[in-house]
Amino acid sequence: MTLASPGPTLGVVGGGQLGRMLGEAAAPLGVAVVVSDPTPDAPAAPTTRDQVVGGFDDPGTVRELAERADYLTFEIELADPDLLESVAAEFDVPVHPDPDTLRTIEDKLVQKRRLEDAGVPVPAFRAVDSVADLHDAGEDLGYPLMLKARRGGYDGRGNVPVESPADAADAFAEIVEAAQGASPDDPAGVAMAEEMVDFERELAVMGCLGEGERDTFPVTETVHREEILRETVSPARADEAVRERAREVALDVLDVMSGRGVYGIELFQGPDDEVLLNEIAPRPHNSGHWTIEGCHTSQFEQHVRAVTGRALGDTGRRAPTVSTNVLGDVEERQEATLHGEGRVFETPRAHLHWYGKREVYRLRKMGHVTLVGETDAETDDLLADARRLREDLTFA
Amino acid sequence: MTLASPGPTLGVVGGGQLGRMLGEAAAPLGVAVVVSDPTPDAPAAPTTRDQVVGGFDDPGTVRELAERADYLTFEIELADPDLLESVAAEFDVPVHPDPDTLRTIEDKLVQKRRLEDAGVPVPAFRAVDSVADLHDAGEDLGYPLMLKARRGGYDGRGNVPVESPADAADAFAEIVEAAQGASPDDPAGVAMAEEMVDFERELAVMGCLGEGERDTFPVTETVHREEILRETVSPARADEAVRERAREVALDVLDVMSGRGVYGIELFQGPDDEVLLNEIAPRPHNSGHWTIEGCHTSQFEQHVRAVTGRALGDTGRRAPTVSTNVLGDVEERQEATLHGEGRVFETPRAHLHWYGKREVYRLRKMGHVTLVGETDAETDDLLADARRLREDLTFA
Repeated sequence: MTLASPGPTLGVVGGGQLGRMLGEAAAPLGVAVVVSDPTPDAPAAPTTRDQVVGGFDDPGTVRELAERADYLTFEIELADPDLLESVAAEFDVPVHPDPDTLRTIEDKLVQKRRLEDAGVPVPAFRAVDSVADLHDAGEDLGYPLMLKARRGGYDGRGNVPVESPADAADAFAEIVEAAQGASPDDPAGVAMAEEMVDFERELAVMGCLGEGERDTFPVTETVHREEILRETVSPARADEAVRERAREVALDVLDVMSGRGVYGIELFQGPDDEVLLNEIAPRPHNSGHWTIEGCHTSQFEQHVRAVTGRALGDTGRRAPTVSTNVLGDVEERQEATLHGEGRVFETPRAHLHWYGKREVYRLRKMGHVTLVGETDAETDDLLADARRLREDLTFA
Repeated sequence: MTLASPGPTLGVVGGGQLGRMLGEAAAPLGVAVVVSDPTPDAPAAPTTRDQVVGGFDDPGTVRELAERADYLTFEIELADPDLLESVAAEFDVPVHPDPDTLRTIEDKLVQKRRLEDAGVPVPAFRAVDSVADLHDAGEDLGYPLMLKARRGGYDGRGNVPVESPADAADAFAEIVEAAQGASPDDPAGVAMAEEMVDFERELAVMGCLGEGERDTFPVTETVHREEILRETVSPARADEAVRERAREVALDVLDVMSGRGVYGIELFQGPDDEVLLNEIAPRPHNSGHWTIEGCHTSQFEQHVRAVTGRALGDTGRRAPTVSTNVLGDVEERQEATLHGEGRVFETPRAHLHWYGKREVYRLRKMGHVTLVGETDAETDDLLADARRLREDLTFA
């Protein structure tokens, strides 16, 4: 392998904050990034070589991306696996992870079945094609249970808790209505029900598949509210045995995945310390942003290394690290102006990561702040500090 | 202070590797960087918002930069202080460091006099306006001595060692010939002579001036050959007392500087452990590249913070860190293709920083590699590892 200038170009479907941070990580390695995104001047545009403006599933856009790229990847699950496969073949450009992974993952029911078949521990689940199915699921799984759209949900969108049989009809109608292209008259294939895990805490592991090697980043703890990630705490405040079990489950998940790259693997630590798989994202993930400061290699550099066929970097943790998301705290969509970020700059070892989005709306991910500590004993304090910093940040 | 998108724009005169790494550091902070550089698609272009193509002292170029910027700075001493001052006034854009600092620094004789007046320990020196002056300097300072062009020298260019009186005439002619615009008939103001310090080692400190605050990065050791920086070792392998003295000298130097930003302060540790100032660069400096991985805040982030009026970041060292420059090892100017970089990727905690230059020539700075260790005791091993890695890197 040699390096010249211009170096290899990595084409990325999606130009949001993940593309932005991929661009930041790729530059020192001599890898140029070109993203495609329908929003002109997307968050990734300033940190990457160029942006092709166009839809994630627009053939012309993805063809232009492939024409300019030596390697293809995606930072959003809305990437179209059929299109990626055909374009990769047409332009003879490798695409990683394998687009087929998107097919496995995009349908949560297919994902869960595939993982269960591979021996990965998952919460109990079943297909729900009708209100009657949902009632049956309630009998099986107990209440409350979680009704999930099989496709297209993220950040809690597409998840509806069902507290009792009385809620079933409304919950099912809500999922069917929210599902793109689904008809209330033919709701088959739209939904699944899942046991509501009474978890002790949520964990996440970034898994890495390289060329003939695999690895995991250290297990992190994730804190969600309204099903949106708020904070990560590393190391996870779980017993070493639980962390080791989480790592084993993540490695088992990687066995099911295909193609190089990093994978966000979200887990539950159940009431008896069992570890169950929650969801997988075949890309860098919010739960791994802490690795930028917290590990010797960031998840973004690791993804660039993996997809371009370079050796994986050292995933070792450098220090205890907490991250907190900066989310939109306004009700109406409006131009984004963040107040209070001066305190982040004044706080030693606090790192602002701004995503460059022009507009803010409620719960939109606008940036994150990472706090680095010294000893693992102080993660509670770090988390408290991060929360105080975040409380001062407002778009109002 | 608030942050919006697009955020504040930092205009940087110069778009080489320092501008490139400024761009990498600015993006997470929400600061957009625009550089100016005469070379189209300069190294900084891919990591910054935009590049204005034009000379460092071209009024139209610097005016365009100022028009687009909320803050101005420079990453090269060839920036023109008069032009920066007039353009800053015209567009009401603050420029940091104070362009007057460039005037102080650009003439090494003026720089040394100013520092000596302020009580900063410097090697003995004197003005040399003729061969006769050089002979007098030899009487005063002893041989060998260093004859230096007062302006325009860097990476050893413009420095000629004088071994004995017999060398004086040739050495003086060489300096006068190399000095741009100097006439052999009127060589006054071109040169200075300096005592050749029989140093134990060379040290460097990155000094930081913020808004009402100042700080220093930890003292690093620098290793030069052919007067070009080859390696840095942090912490410097000097006694704590020497490191403390180096920090004191750096703070005294900052007292002489004016305007916010980071300053590269190069020092000699003399035979009796005294610390003498060698040279100053009013910008991020090669001796501070190790801070990207080695400190909580990099020198590049620190410069962006300082120039844009944000609080200075934590300069604390995270780990022992060695950096080695990747220099051109070919005799003829040619397209750059680096071989052997695969080993860098395979080495845990080794970090490649590629500057994206299309062409390579002998001793051109093409990139650097940083190695991060665990305990301060292992810096010798780290340095040996870095040298081995670098030996495998070749453009031939």
